[in-house]
Formats: sequence, C-alpha cells, structure tokens
Amino acid sequence: MGKSTDDLLRLADDVSPVRPPRELDMLLTAGERISMALVCMALAGRGVEAASFTGSQAGIITDADHTRAKILEMRPTRIREALDAGLTPVVAGFQGVSTTRDITTLGRGGSDVTAVALAAALGADVCEIYTDVTGVFSADPRVVSKARRLNRVSFDEMMEMAATGGRVLMLRSVEFARRHGVPLHVRSSFTWEPGTWIVEEDATMEDAVVSAVTDDTSEAKITVGGVPDHPGVAARLFRELADRGINLDMIVQNTSENGLTDISFTVAKTDIDDAHRACEAVREELGATKVSADAGIGRVTIVGAGMKSNPGVTALMFETLSNRGINIEMISTSSIRISCVVRADRVEEAVIALHTAFGLDAVSS
Amino acid sequence: MGKSTDDLLRLADDVSPVRPPRELDMLLTAGERISMALVCMALAGRGVEAASFTGSQAGIITDADHTRAKILEMRPTRIREALDAGLTPVVAGFQGVSTTRDITTLGRGGSDVTAVALAAALGADVCEIYTDVTGVFSADPRVVSKARRLNRVSFDEMMEMAATGGRVLMLRSVEFARRHGVPLHVRSSFTWEPGTWIVEEDATMEDAVVSAVTDDTSEAKITVGGVPDHPGVAARLFRELADRGINLDMIVQNTSENGLTDISFTVAKTDIDDAHRACEAVREELGATKVSADAGIGRVTIVGAGMKSNPGVTALMFETLSNRGINIEMISTSSIRISCVVRADRVEEAVIALHTAFGLDAVSS
Repeated sequence: MGKSTDDLLRLADDVSPVRPPRELDMLLTAGERISMALVCMALAGRGVEAASFTGSQAGIITDADHTRAKILEMRPTRIREALDAGLTPVVAGFQGVSTTRDITTLGRGGSDVTAVALAAALGADVCEIYTDVTGVFSADPRVVSKARRLNRVSFDEMMEMAATGGRVLMLRSVEFARRHGVPLHVRSSFTWEPGTWIVEEDATMEDAVVSAVTDDTSEAKITVGGVPDHPGVAARLFRELADRGINLDMIVQNTSENGLTDISFTVAKTDIDDAHRACEAVREELGATKVSADAGIGRVTIVGAGMKSNPGVTALMFETLSNRGINIEMISTSSIRISCVVRADRVEEAVIALHTAFGLDAVSS
Repeated sequence: MGKSTDDLLRLADDVSPVRPPRELDMLLTAGERISMALVCMALAGRGVEAASFTGSQAGIITDADHTRAKILEMRPTRIREALDAGLTPVVAGFQGVSTTRDITTLGRGGSDVTAVALAAALGADVCEIYTDVTGVFSADPRVVSKARRLNRVSFDEMMEMAATGGRVLMLRSVEFARRHGVPLHVRSSFTWEPGTWIVEEDATMEDAVVSAVTDDTSEAKITVGGVPDHPGVAARLFRELADRGINLDMIVQNTSENGLTDISFTVAKTDIDDAHRACEAVREELGATKVSADAGIGRVTIVGAGMKSNPGVTALMFETLSNRGINIEMISTSSIRISCVVRADRVEEAVIALHTAFGLDAVSS
C-alpha cells in the first residue's frame, strides 16, 4: 500500500498547507489498517484464521513525538492471546500509541522496527523480514553484477552496512535487534530459499575480512574553512546545526595548520541549503573564512568484522582507488568499517573495483 | 469519503471471497480516519486548533456484533478534556470499540448515532446534523414540488417518518435522541438558514393534524394464504423468518373466514427470495395453502401528532386515494400514523394528492 501513503499525503495537500503532526499520523496509519484487514481477509479466504491488530491493540507504546515516535514499551498481551488461541496475528507496522493515548507513527524504518520489537517482546526464535530481494548482498547487485548473497552477517557489520548505504534493512531495526538479541532472517517474499541471517557475532564465527562494499550518493558535503583551532569552536558550529534539526553523518576535521583548520561534514542532500545557511549564520562568530557546499560527492565503504585483526585492509582499499585515479576527499573509519568520500560519478567504479580487490566476486558458474 | 468505502469494499472483493466481520470493520473504519484527519488539517489551515479522535479514543463502547454494533456506554473523557483545552474535537462517526477491545462499526445510520450519543454524554444543548438538504420536509421535495420545510417536529413524528421512508434521518438516531432527550437540529451544510428542530413534544406545542407524507418503494409484500387460524401458527412462521435474519416491517393478518386466514408482511426487496423460501419451508407444517411474493408494491404514509384527536383523518386519507382510483392493499396504523400499501406505480400520485388534501402544500409566492 505504499502508493496509498502518497495518495493520502496528496489529499492532505489538497485540504490545507498546515498539517498538524498528530493528524498526519492519524491519516497515515489508515494505509496499514487497510492493508492488514485485507491480508486477514486473504488469509481467511485460504482457510487461515487471522486477526489484525493496530499498533495500539498490539501494545506498542511510544513517546509522543509524532511522525517519528520511538517505542518505549511493548505490551503485546493481545498478540499472545491470539497466538495461544491458534490465530495468526497480523500487526500494523509503523504505528503505535503514545503515552498520551494518541496514535503515532514510527517514522522511517518503522515497519521493520515493529516486527523486531514484537519478536523481542514475544521471545521469538527469529524475526523473518520478507523483502523484494533474496537477502543481504556483498554489494548492491544493480552496481556489482558479481555481488553474492551473504549467508550470515553479524549485527555490527549489518549496522555499518545499513549506515553507509545498504538498502535492505534500516539501521534502526538492526540496532533494535542487536540490543534485544533477536536473530533476523532477511529473505525473499517470492521464493522459499534461505536468505541472510543477521546474528550475534560469536567466537566460532569465521570472520570475513571484508563482507560487503556499500555505496551512498544521497549526501552532500559542507566544508567550513579557515576555522581558528580553539576549543569550543566546533561545538558552537554543531550546536547551531543541531538546533536547526540537521542530521550530520561523517564529520572530519583536518589537522590544524597555522592555528587554522577545516571542518567538513556530510548531510542529506535535502538538507544542503539549510546546512549552508546555518554555517554562514555562525561563520563570523567562529572566525571562519569560508563555507562551501558540494553536492557532487559519493561515499564508498567496506565493512567486515575481520578487519580489526587485518592491518593491510586500509592500504589495499586506498591502493585500489588510487590505481584507478579515484581521489579520496574524506575518510572516516570504525573498527569494522572504512568509508571514503569520492566524486559521485566515480562511486560505481570504486565499488566494483573494491568488490573484486577484496575477493568478494561470485565465482561465475 | 462515501466513495472511499466502496473502494475499500472493492479491494476486499479483490483479495478474498471471505470477509471476517472483524476485519471488515478494521477495513471500513479507515475511511473515517482519513476524513477526520483531513478535516482537522483543513481546520488548522484556517487557524482552528482541532484534534481528531477515533471511536475508541472518544470512548464509544459497543457490543462485539461486528458491522452492526450497538453502543453500550459512552466514556468521552478525552473529548471533554479537548473541549476544556479549547480544542475543536473531530470524532470519527460510525465506529466504536467493543468490550473485547476490537474495533467495531455501528452499521446503518451509525454516523448520526455517534453524534447524538456524544451530544447526550456531553450534556450538549443540541445536536446539529448537517446534511445536503435544508431540513425535514412535509414530503420528499423530489416527489412533491410544493413540499415545505418543517420548523419543528416531535420525536414521535420524526420516528414515524424515518420508519416509513423519510430519508433525512435514520430511525435509529432519532430513537437514541428521544431516549436521551437530545434536541436535534437538522440543517444544511451549505447555508446558515435554520433547519428543522426535532424536540420533545410538549403541551404548548401546536400539533399539526398531519405534518408530513412519506413514501417508500423499497419493500416487497409476501402473503401466506389459507393459514388455519390456530394459536401458535403465526408464531411458528415469524420464528422461521427471524431465525433466517429477515426483518419484517408491516404485518397484517386478516380476520379469519371459515377458520382460515391470510398473513401478509413486507420485507426489504433484497430479502424477497429469502423470505419466500422461508415461508415455503414451513408452509406444510403450518397447513397453509399458498405463498406469494409481490415486488410491485409501495407504501404511502401520513404522520401527525395531532391525528390522535382528529377522527376524520383516516376517512380523508382513504377518500383521497379512492377518488383517484388507487386501491389500498394493506393498512397499518399507529396513534400518529396511517400507512397504506398501494401499487408502486401509484405512490407518487398518492403522495401528491395526500399532501394537498391535508393542507400541506406551500403557498406559492
């Protein structure tokens, strides 16, 4: 019913330029309500006794932050009763009820989070996520034709992948699953073949040095140049951005030269103008010399739990890019991830090259 | 969003021939949810702070008879809080939450009933029903061009009108309003002119002998002939019909001749085949000689609180019909109503003639 959500938003546009978030949530939850009632009818038509539950009925208690509520507590009494009665419960994703008893939506990734939270609360063995691909791949198969489906990925790897452009699962649901120890099984809605298991890393797991290469061209880069390298300067800048509700992703500050430094960060492309204005607003106060914005960047990332104990990984990544004349503009790392910002139009080439360099290409049959 | 309900039902048809009533209610309540969120946004766009409430949030507690639930109790705590906070509450009509915490719909007339029940529970001075006509008329203006808007009608009259073909209000909401003493004001959505007040009859009210003429061609007549006039025979027949969920309207039994009688009743045209089969199923047991069905009937009714004290009314009605050669096939009366079943194709003529005969025609200006 994805189309239905757009239709509902169009209806809202027709009636008013003002959309109180509480009413937006009331409106948008109608789509899932329709879907789940239809799913239950389809199941009934096949002789399966099913019962639909709204987020509220399923006991999904959230905060009152409309359109992007967070789950505070799960009280799935009715779901347990339905299971005990032999029914197949069908629960509306993406919605809950706030502590002030208003209907909320969980924002981006909210449907998967609903599933994971229910699995956790019910003590399920596994949370199966059915999607339009057969699992999590070593790279986006649309970019890398030799990408392989991964049988098993650790939560940490999956989180890094989700955070850096992996499109199968949202970071939020993986985080939730990790915190509650819920194994995830990502698989296809259209076939019965096993997909990818996302599980707690354990000692017996054979860590791949690099499991996957991800890419992301949805961000832009902002650079504030000639910033005096004093304590508190960066804090002032990022406070300004936070107050304007702008989410930052990568942040890189170069080593100071002559007491001046550059601070670069990436933001969603949709926030580029807001971020630019925010930096300009504090530029003089910071004593910075200039602010520049660049929408032509992309990011390529390698993720692997085995990277920790393999010192050569960084070198191989940089060599691979350098051999192709791909310039690295920003670098950011964690213990199991290395991300490089490069020109957006070189991202695909970089992903394909890294996928081959780290031995991820599927053996052609 | 009336069209939306049809769309939803079509979606249900697409997925399954089986429609569990609980899921049907989940599906159908989505329409009102969409409407009320949009209404609140439109109000916000005009600077009015509004808040939408589902039936459940508004505290409309019903039985668990899905698709035609009855209101058991009103607990409009949140509506009262919203009013106290200066908000304009917008409540979804037609829906509630059952004692088993499932979402229910109130069935036909359920939206008006919601309004009346809320007005009663909140102790409102009046419940205003906005509709596409300017009020309640002395006859259907599409049939009688000289029909007049009535300023004031008693609950009893309105109930008789609703039961005999008046299309403005459903019997159910009028009954509810009368039982709880909630004055209704039926008026136009498009103008500010006063409409029709429906109020408790009081001693000071000047009763019109006849207030309105209604008509109804939605029913069919079933006659069971040659029924032995023994105690229990009619009971057996009507039990059979009740067990099959067939609602009867008028019931007439003629005086017995030679120990045999005819029983006639009217049912909705959609029930004609079921009713015919039900009668055939018990015909031999009853010792009846034949069952006939007639879909070509219509009913014309005069309603007036002043009829009680005016003995000439019945005579004038029958004379008016007889003068035009309109044959009366069944008669049924209450203290403030006389209904006659006639051929369906004579109904309009009968209504116009009675409207004139009882002095209801508007004075042309």
